[in-house]
Amino acid sequence: MLNGGSSSGKSGIVRCLQAVLPEPWLAFGVDSLIEAMPPGMEGSAGGLEIAADGAVSVGPAFRALEAAWGQGLAAMVRAGARIIVDDVFLGGAASQQRWQRALAGLEVLWVGVRCDSAVAAGRELARGDRATGMAAAQAELAHRGVVYDLEIDTTHTEALDCARVIAARVKVT
Amino acid sequence: MLNGGSSSGKSGIVRCLQAVLPEPWLAFGVDSLIEAMPPGMEGSAGGLEIAADGAVSVGPAFRALEAAWGQGLAAMVRAGARIIVDDVFLGGAASQQRWQRALAGLEVLWVGVRCDSAVAAGRELARGDRATGMAAAQAELAHRGVVYDLEIDTTHTEALDCARVIAARVKVT
Amino acid sequence: MLNGGSSSGKSGIVRCLQAVLPEPWLAFGVDSLIEAMPPGMEGSAGGLEIAADGAVSVGPAFRALEAAWGQGLAAMVRAGARIIVDDVFLGGAASQQRWQRALAGLEVLWVGVRCDSAVAAGRELARGDRATGMAAAQAELAHRGVVYDLEIDTTHTEALDCARVIAARVKVT
Amino acid sequence: MLNGGSSSGKSGIVRCLQAVLPEPWLAFGVDSLIEAMPPGMEGSAGGLEIAADGAVSVGPAFRALEAAWGQGLAAMVRAGARIIVDDVFLGGAASQQRWQRALAGLEVLWVGVRCDSAVAAGRELARGDRATGMAAAQAELAHRGVVYDLEIDTTHTEALDCARVIAARVKVT
Repeated sequence: MLNGGSSSGKSGIVRCLQAVLPEPWLAFGVDSLIEAMPPGMEGSAGGLEIAADGAVSVGPAFRALEAAWGQGLAAMVRAGARIIVDDVFLGGAASQQRWQRALAGLEVLWVGVRCDSAVAAGRELARGDRATGMAAAQAELAHRGVVYDLEIDTTHTEALDCARVIAARVKVT
Repeated sequence: MLNGGSSSGKSGIVRCLQAVLPEPWLAFGVDSLIEAMPPGMEGSAGGLEIAADGAVSVGPAFRALEAAWGQGLAAMVRAGARIIVDDVFLGGAASQQRWQRALAGLEVLWVGVRCDSAVAAGRELARGDRATGMAAAQAELAHRGVVYDLEIDTTHTEALDCARVIAARVKVT
Repeated sequence: MLNGGSSSGKSGIVRCLQAVLPEPWLAFGVDSLIEAMPPGMEGSAGGLEIAADGAVSVGPAFRALEAAWGQGLAAMVRAGARIIVDDVFLGGAASQQRWQRALAGLEVLWVGVRCDSAVAAGRELARGDRATGMAAAQAELAHRGVVYDLEIDTTHTEALDCARVIAARVKVT
Repeated sequence: MLNGGSSSGKSGIVRCLQAVLPEPWLAFGVDSLIEAMPPGMEGSAGGLEIAADGAVSVGPAFRALEAAWGQGLAAMVRAGARIIVDDVFLGGAASQQRWQRALAGLEVLWVGVRCDSAVAAGRELARGDRATGMAAAQAELAHRGVVYDLEIDTTHTEALDCARVIAARVKVT
């Protein structure tokens, strides 16, 4: 479970993890969840709202689908799949607790992906496909009260090197 | 559950379904599963192979992840989510039986999405993002021995109209 | 030169044209122009504005870059390239006159791509990547006062068949 | 004109440049050229071939379209557009000479974008959308005999910072 703000570098790490881990791992994340939702979910009151300053808020309709999705990912693991999840814990510790309930009984490596706020904002600009301000808004927010097994910082470390650090812990686990 | 060959028009129908159905439905499909798999899965012996003529074959590593994924989608439904799945039943009736086992106890509307083989091949060319030959190879193959609640044909019917026909049956269900 | 409203089916026809024409043709269009523009151009006063109802308006900064781009495409043709352009003539006849000046002295086949407004709106929904309302707003608008060598209608005709009709005229030309 | 190997970070720099430069600049590159070519161009003898080890070779049909495209970009500049081009000089100095002829009489800032070969290969893996090996194959190759006004290295410098260095030189020019 990788948690970190937008443009902190989670997706690149996930792709490298899939390449360096010896077994095939499925990768899911909040982006793939949003893609699975109806287009109308974005911008609606009960769904997903992205403010002009990049602040993201989610309503009860979003939360309900997200909870069912979390249950489904847990079931995939119980059915034998290895899974990498990347998420943005907008609720910090409360988000982690929701995941802990969904993943109860499963072996989870909690990984915090940090990135200097200004650097993440620059990478957001370089990507060109995210609402400006999300990176800065989430850089600290996502980590509030969250407890990790491992923390990595992409500010000065390449995605592949981060992935190798994580993969080493996965093998131990 | 929508089943049909490549370029038969499933994705467009799914997006229209999400728009016309009054409740929010999550959409998953074989494309999103492949996207979740490691890049190395494509082209590998145990994974997913696409021959020069568009014929697709999948190995045991692919099948194992697919089975766990199916279990996970079933768990999402049990957790309260409404889900649209689009798939290509490469194994025909055998594929349907695998899904029937995964979805046991759940309410499923089995929908066959057909399209004239030559028309699907033309749409494949117009999309420009699929291996040439997949549409023709799968047009009949995907439906062999499969039993449906509803069959639609996109050859002369627009995606939105197909979606409305399906949505009407969803409401009745 | 293909002109038609959003979701009238131009892109699919272009890809089919590139496949059926015996010589290699380069394809450019208003979408690739917008992609080449700075992200800030979209939503800015002098740039490109898409209203909530799908109405598109462009300002002087957009027009200036568009004009230079048109000159550049003409130069590519003079340098020996065969080029397919797809555009939405938001200004109708005035847009065509701008193109006629840019392409002066070159052999151009003017093709109108029409689609029933309701069908185009349905395809817009099925694509899921366009602002709702653009298809309906542009279905008639794009053709006002425009004179064509050839008109095709995608309402009941597949992209590949449309491409073959156009390609036959290209050969004659 | 930005030249550098695959995954050296050109695209991110270009997007940042478009954001930090006060005037609107159009961005074109070899990727957008390839996208404009017919699908059949890729993998064909006279077109674009990507070997299993990531080596790229281009044939006469590709070269002819590329030359016309370069003439067109020059014409856009003459018509008043500011343009950023990113390319991979597969032929090193010979590629630069081709561009110099196409851009004769225009003000050009030649920028070399370097990245440590191993780091670029890691970023290639993290992107997940490029043929493995291209980054390593092109890291040195693209710069052979090329003369620059400015060289930047993305190994330890963020795209936004690189863009600012380039933008400072653009203003002086």
